[in-house]
Amino acid sequence: MRILLLNGPNLNTLGTREPEVYGRVTLPEIEEMVRSRAASLGADVRCFQANSEGAMIDWLQQEAGDADGLIVNGASYTHTSVALRDAIAGSRLPAVEVHITNVWKREPFRHESLLSEVCLGVIAGLGTHGYVLALEALVLALKGDE
Amino acid sequence: MRILLLNGPNLNTLGTREPEVYGRVTLPEIEEMVRSRAASLGADVRCFQANSEGAMIDWLQQEAGDADGLIVNGASYTHTSVALRDAIAGSRLPAVEVHITNVWKREPFRHESLLSEVCLGVIAGLGTHGYVLALEALVLALKGDE
Amino acid sequence: MRILLLNGPNLNTLGTREPEVYGRVTLPEIEEMVRSRAASLGADVRCFQANSEGAMIDWLQQEAGDADGLIVNGASYTHTSVALRDAIAGSRLPAVEVHITNVWKREPFRHESLLSEVCLGVIAGLGTHGYVLALEALVLALKGDE
Amino acid sequence: MRILLLNGPNLNTLGTREPEVYGRVTLPEIEEMVRSRAASLGADVRCFQANSEGAMIDWLQQEAGDADGLIVNGASYTHTSVALRDAIAGSRLPAVEVHITNVWKREPFRHESLLSEVCLGVIAGLGTHGYVLALEALVLALKGDE
Amino acid sequence: MRILLLNGPNLNTLGTREPEVYGRVTLPEIEEMVRSRAASLGADVRCFQANSEGAMIDWLQQEAGDADGLIVNGASYTHTSVALRDAIAGSRLPAVEVHITNVWKREPFRHESLLSEVCLGVIAGLGTHGYVLALEALVLALKGDE
Amino acid sequence: MRILLLNGPNLNTLGTREPEVYGRVTLPEIEEMVRSRAASLGADVRCFQANSEGAMIDWLQQEAGDADGLIVNGASYTHTSVALRDAIAGSRLPAVEVHITNVWKREPFRHESLLSEVCLGVIAGLGTHGYVLALEALVLALKGDE
Amino acid sequence: MRILLLNGPNLNTLGTREPEVYGRVTLPEIEEMVRSRAASLGADVRCFQANSEGAMIDWLQQEAGDADGLIVNGASYTHTSVALRDAIAGSRLPAVEVHITNVWKREPFRHESLLSEVCLGVIAGLGTHGYVLALEALVLALKGDE
Amino acid sequence: MRILLLNGPNLNTLGTREPEVYGRVTLPEIEEMVRSRAASLGADVRCFQANSEGAMIDWLQQEAGDADGLIVNGASYTHTSVALRDAIAGSRLPAVEVHITNVWKREPFRHESLLSEVCLGVIAGLGTHGYVLALEALVLALKGDE
Amino acid sequence: MRILLLNGPNLNTLGTREPEVYGRVTLPEIEEMVRSRAASLGADVRCFQANSEGAMIDWLQQEAGDADGLIVNGASYTHTSVALRDAIAGSRLPAVEVHITNVWKREPFRHESLLSEVCLGVIAGLGTHGYVLALEALVLALKGDE
Amino acid sequence: MRILLLNGPNLNTLGTREPEVYGRVTLPEIEEMVRSRAASLGADVRCFQANSEGAMIDWLQQEAGDADGLIVNGASYTHTSVALRDAIAGSRLPAVEVHITNVWKREPFRHESLLSEVCLGVIAGLGTHGYVLALEALVLALKGDE
Amino acid sequence: MRILLLNGPNLNTLGTREPEVYGRVTLPEIEEMVRSRAASLGADVRCFQANSEGAMIDWLQQEAGDADGLIVNGASYTHTSVALRDAIAGSRLPAVEVHITNVWKREPFRHESLLSEVCLGVIAGLGTHGYVLALEALVLALKGDE
Amino acid sequence: MRILLLNGPNLNTLGTREPEVYGRVTLPEIEEMVRSRAASLGADVRCFQANSEGAMIDWLQQEAGDADGLIVNGASYTHTSVALRDAIAGSRLPAVEVHITNVWKREPFRHESLLSEVCLGVIAGLGTHGYVLALEALVLALKGDE
Repeated sequence: MRILLLNGPNLNTLGTREPEVYGRVTLPEIEEMVRSRAASLGADVRCFQANSEGAMIDWLQQEAGDADGLIVNGASYTHTSVALRDAIAGSRLPAVEVHITNVWKREPFRHESLLSEVCLGVIAGLGTHGYVLALEALVLALKGDE
Repeated sequence: MRILLLNGPNLNTLGTREPEVYGRVTLPEIEEMVRSRAASLGADVRCFQANSEGAMIDWLQQEAGDADGLIVNGASYTHTSVALRDAIAGSRLPAVEVHITNVWKREPFRHESLLSEVCLGVIAGLGTHGYVLALEALVLALKGDE
Repeated sequence: MRILLLNGPNLNTLGTREPEVYGRVTLPEIEEMVRSRAASLGADVRCFQANSEGAMIDWLQQEAGDADGLIVNGASYTHTSVALRDAIAGSRLPAVEVHITNVWKREPFRHESLLSEVCLGVIAGLGTHGYVLALEALVLALKGDE
Repeated sequence: MRILLLNGPNLNTLGTREPEVYGRVTLPEIEEMVRSRAASLGADVRCFQANSEGAMIDWLQQEAGDADGLIVNGASYTHTSVALRDAIAGSRLPAVEVHITNVWKREPFRHESLLSEVCLGVIAGLGTHGYVLALEALVLALKGDE
Repeated sequence: MRILLLNGPNLNTLGTREPEVYGRVTLPEIEEMVRSRAASLGADVRCFQANSEGAMIDWLQQEAGDADGLIVNGASYTHTSVALRDAIAGSRLPAVEVHITNVWKREPFRHESLLSEVCLGVIAGLGTHGYVLALEALVLALKGDE
Repeated sequence: MRILLLNGPNLNTLGTREPEVYGRVTLPEIEEMVRSRAASLGADVRCFQANSEGAMIDWLQQEAGDADGLIVNGASYTHTSVALRDAIAGSRLPAVEVHITNVWKREPFRHESLLSEVCLGVIAGLGTHGYVLALEALVLALKGDE
Repeated sequence: MRILLLNGPNLNTLGTREPEVYGRVTLPEIEEMVRSRAASLGADVRCFQANSEGAMIDWLQQEAGDADGLIVNGASYTHTSVALRDAIAGSRLPAVEVHITNVWKREPFRHESLLSEVCLGVIAGLGTHGYVLALEALVLALKGDE
Repeated sequence: MRILLLNGPNLNTLGTREPEVYGRVTLPEIEEMVRSRAASLGADVRCFQANSEGAMIDWLQQEAGDADGLIVNGASYTHTSVALRDAIAGSRLPAVEVHITNVWKREPFRHESLLSEVCLGVIAGLGTHGYVLALEALVLALKGDE
Repeated sequence: MRILLLNGPNLNTLGTREPEVYGRVTLPEIEEMVRSRAASLGADVRCFQANSEGAMIDWLQQEAGDADGLIVNGASYTHTSVALRDAIAGSRLPAVEVHITNVWKREPFRHESLLSEVCLGVIAGLGTHGYVLALEALVLALKGDE
Repeated sequence: MRILLLNGPNLNTLGTREPEVYGRVTLPEIEEMVRSRAASLGADVRCFQANSEGAMIDWLQQEAGDADGLIVNGASYTHTSVALRDAIAGSRLPAVEVHITNVWKREPFRHESLLSEVCLGVIAGLGTHGYVLALEALVLALKGDE
Repeated sequence: MRILLLNGPNLNTLGTREPEVYGRVTLPEIEEMVRSRAASLGADVRCFQANSEGAMIDWLQQEAGDADGLIVNGASYTHTSVALRDAIAGSRLPAVEVHITNVWKREPFRHESLLSEVCLGVIAGLGTHGYVLALEALVLALKGDE
Repeated sequence: MRILLLNGPNLNTLGTREPEVYGRVTLPEIEEMVRSRAASLGADVRCFQANSEGAMIDWLQQEAGDADGLIVNGASYTHTSVALRDAIAGSRLPAVEVHITNVWKREPFRHESLLSEVCLGVIAGLGTHGYVLALEALVLALKGDE
């Protein structure tokens, strides 16, 4: 089982910038947490982060053919990118959308997600642990246990 | 550690009505799943379901004093009940909002939640397993590991 | 053939309060009118009224299993209750929505019904006789004559 | 007692075009059904259909002087014609608005009616039988039995 | 100098229907009033009324070539007819829009006019005398005295 | 003179939960304050609180027949309950709406009240003393001194 | 018969500033035109202009007691002043609203008038001659000829 | 203790104009009522009314330095004046907003107040007695008894 | 293969009125252009233009039975006619919507088309040649080459 | 004559992903079709596709200097990219906007195009053949034959 | 070169009231800063502040004839005064709009300016120094160096 | 002191494309102007321009650690990029937003900036000189002179 983990703009600065909002865990630590949990579930994880909408789509198109599922934190592109939405839909991968913070406690323009409708489901506001929960849910869904 | 599990209107019919939308797992089975997982994490779970907004608030007020956290699926009151929102806020309990289905794939009036802003976070669209993920996230948050 | 007749908040005061808006016929008289017309059509009618959204849903869940159709006047819950809508949809009963007054001649918040989309059809503004017309339409639909 | 039955654009194709939406009953059959039921109630019915908003208004102005009531299915002009609304109001006839389909299950622009506010009431979604129900309600209203 | 006077739907019933809203003066009387005042100003008036949007446009297209100005009361088409607006703009005639009643004291959908932007100006709420004022304004404008 | 005092959801927890928002006075203390001031004005007060919309309406229907006026704090139902509004209107009692906090300093969904239009007037943001002011205003209105 | 002529902000610069929008006629010339026409109709005119909303209201309150009618060009206060609207309504004078330009050809915020609803009628876009037409209409209305 | 009483446009005509809306009590009578009640509570009241937004702000700026609290009826500026709002906020005085009528029973543009958010609270619809209630609430608040 | 070409209001004046907006080609010239291109593709074209919404629908209903496809320029009815939309949908003909001008460069009310959703596709802003392109696309679609 | 053909995000996957929505023709095939038709019309075509908004703009800026016209399918950037719009406007090239699918039959956020206003015209819903039609229209426009 | 500096309501209290929002610099100090910088640039500055919209317009009308440019901080009238906007436009002076605070970090009703569209440009959020920047920009523009 | 100067899409074409909108100064000339003025103020400037949202964010993340302040002209990303906004906020640099043109005189979608709320202030419409003013304001703010 092969899972893609795709993170969007500014998430590469996690842990060092604005820790009072996003916590102190870094992106490499998150990726390691997910990989490690995946290993214990018999799954393999490929990770990518980009600040560019186009680069995210390029990577997703390249990887989607060999993958079984997707964990995606679109960050601010969540609210503005029809292109990323179309790339996820086009990949035909079952996907789980993750947000570290509770987006509904923040500015109104963060309350609307263009990605949710093309994902299986959403996990938001549960911190960096949300990625691990997303992985578990995705693996479960892929195993047809739901 | 004591966790409350509160379910809203029509969730008592889970598994028997509209299984093509909500799946075939019943509410007692969900409650058992959560209780069992909680036991393994050293937590105790109290469960309640009501079709009445007022009854949900009554129960939450009574139980909140002895509880450490809340898992809540407000069902359709999610979108209409300021009273339930105020009761959750008033309880001062850390809460995780759960939805079995992906509400953003459904009618527009289900896209807006009045509860999200007073909860830690949200898990939606991951089926009945979402309750277990909510429990894990809540226990983790309560243990201060986040 | 078994028909449910469900009336919402404040309809128990019909005939005595605000007769210039709702007329002088009481709810028991309406229920009798519907029962009598049903008898002549070979149908049986069970009636319920509540001021509580939750109580309406409780009753509908209990009765739906043995029933063939529903006549529902949600009264003010028509405009605010997603929960009642979900209960009607969950019951899988063919339903006819009735309003005694012409809701479009009244305040704007009465122009929108959350129930219409899960009902067969709507009868509004034709007074208490609208219940009898709803019964006739429902029986006809159930007999497959439409 | 003289009743007018006025049908709007595209209703002349009922029964032959899009039967999966509007059913297989033709407009002449509907008019016959209404006439026959009217006869048994001691009422006389005059019928007209036009695809032109202006023709509908012309006819209504000509007939209104000798008539006692109106059954109107404005079809798509329901949602766009202030002129038809003004003609109905100007006729001073008690009117019942009919729609064969449940307009609230269709596109959003069909949810708003410009005619409802100048009619006694509305019957929608109950198929072609809705015309007969409208006749009964209108006759009852004219007899002052309501 | 040749002036066109074009009246829209239901204005043919002026004076006989809803006199409490529109007054007791009939359309022929208005046309006579305008013709008579025009004669004293050395102008000739051609009049037309139709309940059909298309007929109004047909007439305007036919007459516009020989005319110098237009007085138009679009009645309810004022608020809904882009086609009439385009016909007025296409005629290239200086036009004055007239309304007998004060449309801003009536329903909100009568507050917006599609015609105003293609007319010189508007006279509303000044009763049937507004037609005469419109004529005077139009003649003055045509004489280049403004 | 008999006055009803009706309080809505979560107000039973006044004084103990979120005192930084709602103050430290409890609901029984408020009720006592109002009763005591009423006694000095020669009026009698009956009090009720419920978390359930339906229970509030039930009580109001039962008590309204023998009462002369109503003081109502709908709490969060203020913003969502057409049913409570209809019950107040149906009671035909002169009513004063009270809010302990200044609702316009809070979330936007608390700025709109469904009850204000069926009450004599509103007192908001003046703390628990607002109930006493409401009583005084109501008694004055009932004595016809206004 | 005594008529008030009230002009709002920036109209004192008519004729000298932005003549391509408002023409070359000055306010004193307009006032003279209206006075002269009034004299021929047996009416007396009192004129006032102010850039201050409060000064306009002060003057209207002082003059209203002895006046029979009002011609008002609120200029930009037309679109923003509830206070001027209330002063006109409070004066109980029959009023005609005048605009020199066709406000519907200009910015959207000029399309809405707060004054129209408390006036008899409106004349817009007919240049400075519109004031004379307003006078004629007002005198006619006052003479009960309408 | 020194209280300011500030009244907005058209309130100087209270009692004489539109008494069916605003009652028959005059502004001097209101000011006397408030002064008299203030005397009995050991407070002093300074009063001002203006039709001009600027004059209201000028007065408030001048008086605020020596005052302890403010009672303000912004009248129509309530709905349009950010400047008055800023002046109240700038004064740093605890303020109570008063409206004689129930503004929510009136036109929609009167439902929104720009002032409420910078006041302690609001009293509306309780007639001229509302000023006295506002005084009592303000004195109580100033005495720290709330 | 038989193609219908249906043009809406004011298009009969093409080439003579407002040539700076719509160009100098007349409607008969357009119809000839389409017929001639159709002949070379082995198709037959029937043409109709009307200023009346009803007449357009009448013609479409009459011709649709024998036709294979539709080219339609609804002109201003594009933006207002649900009736024309329903007639196109009812005809079950594959249709191509044409606009001579780029409607999105014009007034906002021309940006929304009620017809697009019931057509195969849209060609706009490409001048009168757009009709020929529409014909080519339609013939291609009918030949199943797409 | 030199034509640019610019395609946006996810169009590189045409023909292989979601063929039931976008058909089975690949982007290289489309480019070949356009090139071939261009050759027969004496024009030269340069093609580019990118998933990145910035890359699309970079390419357009580089090529625009030597080009005579542009065919652009902005894909999902159509609805979100002011930057692409500004690049097209800045290029000063006559442009034709193409969409393979009928965007008005899809989600509401696809109904609005930011590009249309800076293009000559639009072709939508006519499948991949729409690119060829766009080429023909563009060549015709460039030849000044329109 | 003569520059006008016009400040709106409540700015006369700068430096003494709400210094945490607006800073501690007083209006006379600002005016002195601008005058002094102007002197060094060879320009003369005339200053005015008023709390009254009308007084601001009066002053601008009087001074505009002899002036070359305008620096304006409309304060709260920025968001509500069409009259001030019209006065600026009528003055034909090149104008720079200044705000001391960053209005987009404040309440939503401060995000919209009615003045910006009639000014050369805007400087906001740069504190009292913004006035000096505005002067420099204005002088530069007047010298035609831009 | 180190200042970053970041310019967005299409600004690399300044001076050569659409000079009637953006003027004739090129981006290198602007950068030189800012650098030169900075030198005289003892500050160092690093410059970057990209057409890609992602590239802008990449650069800002890399440079922010060593920088003291930011001047940013987001160009069209101003109105659409939450990602750029988050990168600016994440950088924790005091920032000044610059626009060469007066965005409020242009299309409505340019009136809203996503960046303003995370910047110190905004300078718009003052031409390319606005960059120099921004530098001065930024340096002043950094020196704590404000």
